[in-house]
Amino acid sequence: MERRRIIFSGSGGQGVITAAIILAEAAVLYEGLNAVQSQSYGPEARGGASRSDVIIADADIHFPKVIKPNALVCLTQDAYNKYFGLIRPDGLLLTDSHYVKQDKMVDARQVELDMYKEVMDKIGRPIVFNICMLGAFITLTQLIKPESIVKVLKNRIPAELLGLNKQALELGIKLAENYNR
Amino acid sequence: MERRRIIFSGSGGQGVITAAIILAEAAVLYEGLNAVQSQSYGPEARGGASRSDVIIADADIHFPKVIKPNALVCLTQDAYNKYFGLIRPDGLLLTDSHYVKQDKMVDARQVELDMYKEVMDKIGRPIVFNICMLGAFITLTQLIKPESIVKVLKNRIPAELLGLNKQALELGIKLAENYNR
Repeated sequence: MERRRIIFSGSGGQGVITAAIILAEAAVLYEGLNAVQSQSYGPEARGGASRSDVIIADADIHFPKVIKPNALVCLTQDAYNKYFGLIRPDGLLLTDSHYVKQDKMVDARQVELDMYKEVMDKIGRPIVFNICMLGAFITLTQLIKPESIVKVLKNRIPAELLGLNKQALELGIKLAENYNR
Repeated sequence: MERRRIIFSGSGGQGVITAAIILAEAAVLYEGLNAVQSQSYGPEARGGASRSDVIIADADIHFPKVIKPNALVCLTQDAYNKYFGLIRPDGLLLTDSHYVKQDKMVDARQVELDMYKEVMDKIGRPIVFNICMLGAFITLTQLIKPESIVKVLKNRIPAELLGLNKQALELGIKLAENYNR
């Protein structure tokens, strides 16, 4: 497989770090791949920004930081404004319609999905917004199977919250599938 | 300040990744420092091993992986056997007495604390073992103030679990203070 370099970005409470860890664990534990996942915190973290990098490959990974992502997710306008220029040509740039207006042209597949609004309308719990994003992300990239994400969720999430999380994952998958049509 | 390179290691369910993220966030958000936090997952993750690296500095951090830690925490015998040799001379090697027997001589401060057993005896909930470790860790290293950790916990932990987590942090601090005497 081609090495996949991913950045999830947004603001502190949106759970982008958790989403990145779940993605990396799914790749390693259930798909036989290697992964490195990291957070760099600088002054921007004190302003509430959050960024998490994941590299997934079938070979060893020596340098964990992502410079030019194949896939970039931005869940706030600030994150989009800061990172859109990093996207690798032919990459995927996914944003949330409620938080971000994509107003720059980039040499990448630009996808806007109404994830936050759908989560609030259909589930009513903002804490699973990140899992909805993850569902959309794995569907658009075809990188990791939903079953592998569900297995990680089962390990990590308290039993009483598992249903909500699976529902959010499914919602994200459907939003991306409808977009793909 | 001197750059601090830290490895937390153990097995999958012990929460070493969460502990590392909390430590990094506390350093960045409440102590004005920079931090990088990462996980490398390879074949050993499929065997249940877990390792998380944190670098904390007052300057920029360019390479996020820890090669020679100033402080190494091992919460399983496997982790200890695998990583003890990495410790930087004069570093701190902290292990849990229930899980690890330190049987190698290293050029470092070797500390064994009965954290797991104390958590089970005094709190009865293994999920806060990692927070007890964090309390002991920040006390032995004097790296981050307990108040900064508590602030991060308040942001991250559901309100109904905050008390348990603060109790575990205090327990870890006391174990390390008693050890220091």
